[in-house]
Amino acid sequence: MLNKNVVTFIGCDCEYEDARIVLFGAPFDSTTSYRPGTRFASNAIRNESYGIETYSPYLDKDLEDYHYYFDSGDIELPMGSNEMALQSIYERTKTIIQDGKLPLMIGGEHLVTLGAFKAIFEQYPDVEIIHFDAHTDLRDDYLGVKLSHACVIRRCYELVGDHKIHHFGIRSGMREEFLFAKEHCDLHKFSFDGLEEVVESLKGKKIYFTIDLDVLDPSYFPGTGTPEYGGVTFKELQQAIHTVISQLDIVGMDMNELSPMLDASGASTALVCKLVRESLLELSKGEEENE
Amino acid sequence: MLNKNVVTFIGCDCEYEDARIVLFGAPFDSTTSYRPGTRFASNAIRNESYGIETYSPYLDKDLEDYHYYFDSGDIELPMGSNEMALQSIYERTKTIIQDGKLPLMIGGEHLVTLGAFKAIFEQYPDVEIIHFDAHTDLRDDYLGVKLSHACVIRRCYELVGDHKIHHFGIRSGMREEFLFAKEHCDLHKFSFDGLEEVVESLKGKKIYFTIDLDVLDPSYFPGTGTPEYGGVTFKELQQAIHTVISQLDIVGMDMNELSPMLDASGASTALVCKLVRESLLELSKGEEENE
Amino acid sequence: MLNKNVVTFIGCDCEYEDARIVLFGAPFDSTTSYRPGTRFASNAIRNESYGIETYSPYLDKDLEDYHYYFDSGDIELPMGSNEMALQSIYERTKTIIQDGKLPLMIGGEHLVTLGAFKAIFEQYPDVEIIHFDAHTDLRDDYLGVKLSHACVIRRCYELVGDHKIHHFGIRSGMREEFLFAKEHCDLHKFSFDGLEEVVESLKGKKIYFTIDLDVLDPSYFPGTGTPEYGGVTFKELQQAIHTVISQLDIVGMDMNELSPMLDASGASTALVCKLVRESLLELSKGEEENE
Amino acid sequence: MLNKNVVTFIGCDCEYEDARIVLFGAPFDSTTSYRPGTRFASNAIRNESYGIETYSPYLDKDLEDYHYYFDSGDIELPMGSNEMALQSIYERTKTIIQDGKLPLMIGGEHLVTLGAFKAIFEQYPDVEIIHFDAHTDLRDDYLGVKLSHACVIRRCYELVGDHKIHHFGIRSGMREEFLFAKEHCDLHKFSFDGLEEVVESLKGKKIYFTIDLDVLDPSYFPGTGTPEYGGVTFKELQQAIHTVISQLDIVGMDMNELSPMLDASGASTALVCKLVRESLLELSKGEEENE
Amino acid sequence: MLNKNVVTFIGCDCEYEDARIVLFGAPFDSTTSYRPGTRFASNAIRNESYGIETYSPYLDKDLEDYHYYFDSGDIELPMGSNEMALQSIYERTKTIIQDGKLPLMIGGEHLVTLGAFKAIFEQYPDVEIIHFDAHTDLRDDYLGVKLSHACVIRRCYELVGDHKIHHFGIRSGMREEFLFAKEHCDLHKFSFDGLEEVVESLKGKKIYFTIDLDVLDPSYFPGTGTPEYGGVTFKELQQAIHTVISQLDIVGMDMNELSPMLDASGASTALVCKLVRESLLELSKGEEENE
Amino acid sequence: MLNKNVVTFIGCDCEYEDARIVLFGAPFDSTTSYRPGTRFASNAIRNESYGIETYSPYLDKDLEDYHYYFDSGDIELPMGSNEMALQSIYERTKTIIQDGKLPLMIGGEHLVTLGAFKAIFEQYPDVEIIHFDAHTDLRDDYLGVKLSHACVIRRCYELVGDHKIHHFGIRSGMREEFLFAKEHCDLHKFSFDGLEEVVESLKGKKIYFTIDLDVLDPSYFPGTGTPEYGGVTFKELQQAIHTVISQLDIVGMDMNELSPMLDASGASTALVCKLVRESLLELSKGEEENE
Repeated sequence: MLNKNVVTFIGCDCEYEDARIVLFGAPFDSTTSYRPGTRFASNAIRNESYGIETYSPYLDKDLEDYHYYFDSGDIELPMGSNEMALQSIYERTKTIIQDGKLPLMIGGEHLVTLGAFKAIFEQYPDVEIIHFDAHTDLRDDYLGVKLSHACVIRRCYELVGDHKIHHFGIRSGMREEFLFAKEHCDLHKFSFDGLEEVVESLKGKKIYFTIDLDVLDPSYFPGTGTPEYGGVTFKELQQAIHTVISQLDIVGMDMNELSPMLDASGASTALVCKLVRESLLELSKGEEENE
Repeated sequence: MLNKNVVTFIGCDCEYEDARIVLFGAPFDSTTSYRPGTRFASNAIRNESYGIETYSPYLDKDLEDYHYYFDSGDIELPMGSNEMALQSIYERTKTIIQDGKLPLMIGGEHLVTLGAFKAIFEQYPDVEIIHFDAHTDLRDDYLGVKLSHACVIRRCYELVGDHKIHHFGIRSGMREEFLFAKEHCDLHKFSFDGLEEVVESLKGKKIYFTIDLDVLDPSYFPGTGTPEYGGVTFKELQQAIHTVISQLDIVGMDMNELSPMLDASGASTALVCKLVRESLLELSKGEEENE
Repeated sequence: MLNKNVVTFIGCDCEYEDARIVLFGAPFDSTTSYRPGTRFASNAIRNESYGIETYSPYLDKDLEDYHYYFDSGDIELPMGSNEMALQSIYERTKTIIQDGKLPLMIGGEHLVTLGAFKAIFEQYPDVEIIHFDAHTDLRDDYLGVKLSHACVIRRCYELVGDHKIHHFGIRSGMREEFLFAKEHCDLHKFSFDGLEEVVESLKGKKIYFTIDLDVLDPSYFPGTGTPEYGGVTFKELQQAIHTVISQLDIVGMDMNELSPMLDASGASTALVCKLVRESLLELSKGEEENE
Repeated sequence: MLNKNVVTFIGCDCEYEDARIVLFGAPFDSTTSYRPGTRFASNAIRNESYGIETYSPYLDKDLEDYHYYFDSGDIELPMGSNEMALQSIYERTKTIIQDGKLPLMIGGEHLVTLGAFKAIFEQYPDVEIIHFDAHTDLRDDYLGVKLSHACVIRRCYELVGDHKIHHFGIRSGMREEFLFAKEHCDLHKFSFDGLEEVVESLKGKKIYFTIDLDVLDPSYFPGTGTPEYGGVTFKELQQAIHTVISQLDIVGMDMNELSPMLDASGASTALVCKLVRESLLELSKGEEENE
Repeated sequence: MLNKNVVTFIGCDCEYEDARIVLFGAPFDSTTSYRPGTRFASNAIRNESYGIETYSPYLDKDLEDYHYYFDSGDIELPMGSNEMALQSIYERTKTIIQDGKLPLMIGGEHLVTLGAFKAIFEQYPDVEIIHFDAHTDLRDDYLGVKLSHACVIRRCYELVGDHKIHHFGIRSGMREEFLFAKEHCDLHKFSFDGLEEVVESLKGKKIYFTIDLDVLDPSYFPGTGTPEYGGVTFKELQQAIHTVISQLDIVGMDMNELSPMLDASGASTALVCKLVRESLLELSKGEEENE
Repeated sequence: MLNKNVVTFIGCDCEYEDARIVLFGAPFDSTTSYRPGTRFASNAIRNESYGIETYSPYLDKDLEDYHYYFDSGDIELPMGSNEMALQSIYERTKTIIQDGKLPLMIGGEHLVTLGAFKAIFEQYPDVEIIHFDAHTDLRDDYLGVKLSHACVIRRCYELVGDHKIHHFGIRSGMREEFLFAKEHCDLHKFSFDGLEEVVESLKGKKIYFTIDLDVLDPSYFPGTGTPEYGGVTFKELQQAIHTVISQLDIVGMDMNELSPMLDASGASTALVCKLVRESLLELSKGEEENE
């Protein structure tokens, strides 16, 4: 008796009912204004994940210590319809949180965050956002398009309102976007400076954590459509993720903007696998005692 | 006194008022369901065109014999809004035909044809379509999206009605699409067999000529998103273009689906340059006597 | 309730008990003497298969007309142990044929054929082999290694004996290999000339059908480790596969030597998807009446 | 009325008469001794520049605040004649400085600096050179060729004489070159250590600023023909450029040795775009008050 | 006792004194006007040659049957000096023919032919040229440069005079070049049509045989700088080489314009290896009896 | 009189009898479990070495100051037989040390270390190992295979016993491997912290020095099969190599795991060339006085 071919991120092998954290892919890049290809990211990291180990020597934890990671695969998203794509992402996220589980979404372009965040925001209206990115993503529209990767955080802002979005690593945008952020958000330019203080102030609140991987310097992460030099290092990002997850109450998370078509060596894809593993393990805080 | 940096397809150096044929790019691939990147095609062929000559030894004609080719550059199209993109393409085409000139559009994905064809159809309601492609593009929708590359010829059909679309080279599609074509169109599978007869029957009519370059076998044209083996050779396509243009009254034309991101060697881009040169020269029939 | 992420070749969606044809991958290339990478082929074609249609306009058949294709995924094979890898392939094949189903294996390097063929040979000791390839693969050893891709057909010969192996398309090898073939096999150089006659003579016999995809000319199939010009075209191979499957009693089949690392554009991978689809449909002969 | 296709670096949109800073490309790499391809750099950065913003959050300045950047395009340079190529570059530079404007040249291989510098030196015989590079470029000849990328700074030395060339970041060369530099130049190995002092000492002098981009570590800049590890970081280079331009009287500047053929991901090209933007803004010091 | 690392084309292992045919590389591409990289060709084919066999099933001959092939390696050529490079090539060729051996040169760009041909012409003033190419290479100058790849056959013409150059496969050039050829040469457009007759008429004469590999259609040979579709197939070229060498008295031969940087899959390089093997074996006519 | 084509690493031009340090390649990657291709590394660095200089400005030493570097080329190793490959490597190493010379091996995958180390260990039974790597390589088996790259240090451990292996830079492995190392080895996680102390304690002992180049962060070294972020910088590795070689008695050394197939830009290969040059010069300590 042979089995069907199941492909999941390493160590994500429980049944859905036992899951506490649910991974899924949002393979959509229809509004990408420059080099496309992030639609292939979630599939790529599943395959590439077999090149790393389930054990983290940083945390001395192993994905196999836990039996509650579930990979529900990619949503089938229609290129050419932002509305329908966001609706599907919203529904998948809604299902996961209604079942009492934590969603971890792999984009896709950054616009996919909007679909997931809407579901989170409905459940947790006081949620705040921690946003790691090279770009503000605060445009009101991009060539007239409101549902664009370049506007996604602005759309989130319209849900949460003033001073609920905490940006780090930002080093690109129009002057207007920086001025907007100054008035309405909590924007930290260039690095993670100030992250400790922000995290301290957010303790006890529900947090949505969105990472546009181009926050990394392109020397670490060339496999993305709009590389912006002057970014953070891998170790800085790894540490910042640790700071955020280990101290705050994360209710949803995503990582976006890996473009495997631009990752000739496969290294950028491997980097994301490592961050996903570390994030899954970090999100399992307080659980290991029960094991 | 130095000049601004003007970049056009080779030999396209007249002023707009003197132009008879107007080239433009439609850099849009937002609905591409598989590998994207055709948005970079029109820019790529302009740059690559300097690798070929203006003279065609096939036709013994030279682009420099004529002084009425004009390259109006790329339209700025918003990724993420099919409607707005098609509207902009429609307007550019409308301008060109209202000024009494012939539009030659370089895609982009095949959906861009719809914008150009709408303008043509308004002007010439009896126009018929010659369509070279590997795929039928006759779906009614693609994952619910009506304005998709996979549906573009179906949308054109809704304008022109039965038996006005003549497909050649088709070798991929759903069974439903082939059945639809059997009833409503004039579909020739796999090759250009029957082209001579069709051309004979269309003499005197206005013709829109749309070429999805994946009609070529991928051995000739790997630089495209959905390679489909079993296609025509370069020489067959060159001959078929000659057959169509030299005998029919072309009122608009396009070439689509080159994806430079998938063209590591640059050869597919060079192929399109050669076809554009040959097409420009073919479209100049009857003019050389005046020179 | 969300599902696990199942990834199969398109249209292979029945349950195992209902399956008549079982696809599996043999991701092994440990003995490849030149450019490696075929280990990634089976996974690549599953993912790439969503770029083609389930319907074949050549055969006017659709994978969805049948509900007995099953994709049992890749075997986990240990790089560095030819013996253990071949044993695992043997066991998977044995299971499939003991369950009364037909195995279709995707390599991997050509050595994997030996594992599958051993199981077939045990079941059908009179089986003969049709072998499409650029290379004879008849070396007795390669740098002292007997279980090498360069020796695989020699090892099969040692099972079946004289005049049971029918090679086509061969255009590379040592003189000794060609002399060996002259005496012990039925080798057709360069093309499929003679295939019709051979097929006629084999009617009624059990046939194992092994295709090293480098039988194709590299203009059609650059994505392989030892490209050898002067090969057959895609259409010739498609026709030859039709000739073989439609007239003979195939008891096992494989396709080998796609190397996705060498397939920058993805076209070679797409070619294999198309051949797998056509082969699945061809292997379903005589079945459609029952559906 | 449609316009010709003008392609310039972002934000370079004034008319020539209004220009204060004039960009041009020198697409020449005929003497490159190892991996070629820098001929494509200037064209690549124009196209790629649309992936970045005109606004710099580092300087809180926007290219659109100024209306005096002009991009005069690429000079047509004959591969295979160093003399003719250098003469053309000399003439373009001469025109620009005679019109009272500042030239910013994008190479090409480093040899192009010689053409531009000759024009600058004629105008400003006391000019000194700041030279960022991994290599000394101080060979007297390369396989007998005097006009070679490997000799370009030696040729400049022959114009300016002793102690007028200030090298930084150097980490490769023949021993003879380092000995020559010790005696005749002001060479700083490996880093920008000492730059502040040198800049202090050069205040009030006319400075030609030449950057061979391989001064960057290849982790930041793989897209170059002779990658030399142990180089400076992007942030260090950005800071060093700031130090030089903000304090000194730059009369000409160039950036060389980007090779887009070696920049599979496009990241190295994006890096140069960012440096060009920052340099344009830095070179606009003292101007913003007038706006 | 260990040996130095000797790297030669397969089967080229005799000592110089025993050699009848001497291979050498001319790694020069300084005048290439478009995509460079042919400088790496000769080295690439040596390394790649181990992927093919020494035995040819086409000719039933084996490089190892003969012991007079010698690979003298690459000449060290100075990028940036056409004159010096051509002089070095001339000298290497002179040495070989003065030693009574036959030179087979691997370019490099096509300009290298001029250096070799000068030496041949001095020895055999009545020599005629058979020239396979996509391009005429008959320009008088290219942007003022006389020693350019685009002019190489014109320079050869100036040595041999009228009606001594026989071109085949030509499909690109300026009108002037075709007119020049009509008057002064024997140009056959597009294919090898007429080759049999030309060969018949040249019997008994000394022949220099120069192959610009872009005579091949880019579907067979994408790895070249100026791909020109509409070319000959591999089998046609293989047959044409057979026709020329087997019937004529070849006194020198070259193959040019492979650019490994553009050959992502390695297939174009493998193609050249096969042609070199076949050519070496063909050039050994009349010798096998003596073995 | 022309010479055979000798290809060696730059500056390795003495005769074997005069050699003190002997370079050789071990082009084997048959057990690589993920992306293969390291078999091409030794050949690649020979060719690439001509892109760097023989002079090191770090050490103010030149390879040409010494005349005792010898490059004995690559061993011909049979893919598909770990035992035979290791035996050949063992024999080459044995020859070199029996002739009183120091071996410097270029892999290949890391398994090749076992062959070389066995020969060293026979000669120097008290030898200890310094091991730079991202991975522990301490598995007992990998899918049942004992002679695997993933087990190579475990196999070495079985020779030397407890506390003789000093690992640095390790950041990936199974928990069991880290626990094993804790008990039996001297493992330093993530960095070179502690190297100075270890080196101090090892003074006077014979040392085998094995470097898996993936100890480098992938931002510096993307050209490897299992990129693992969080690694050391180039400067840190260069300094650590200096620390080890300048103070300890190295009796054998290797560098492994460069995969040129994954090094699109060539930068990773150039990095290894620089490390090999620096290592050769460092290994020449105390010799320069004799020159």
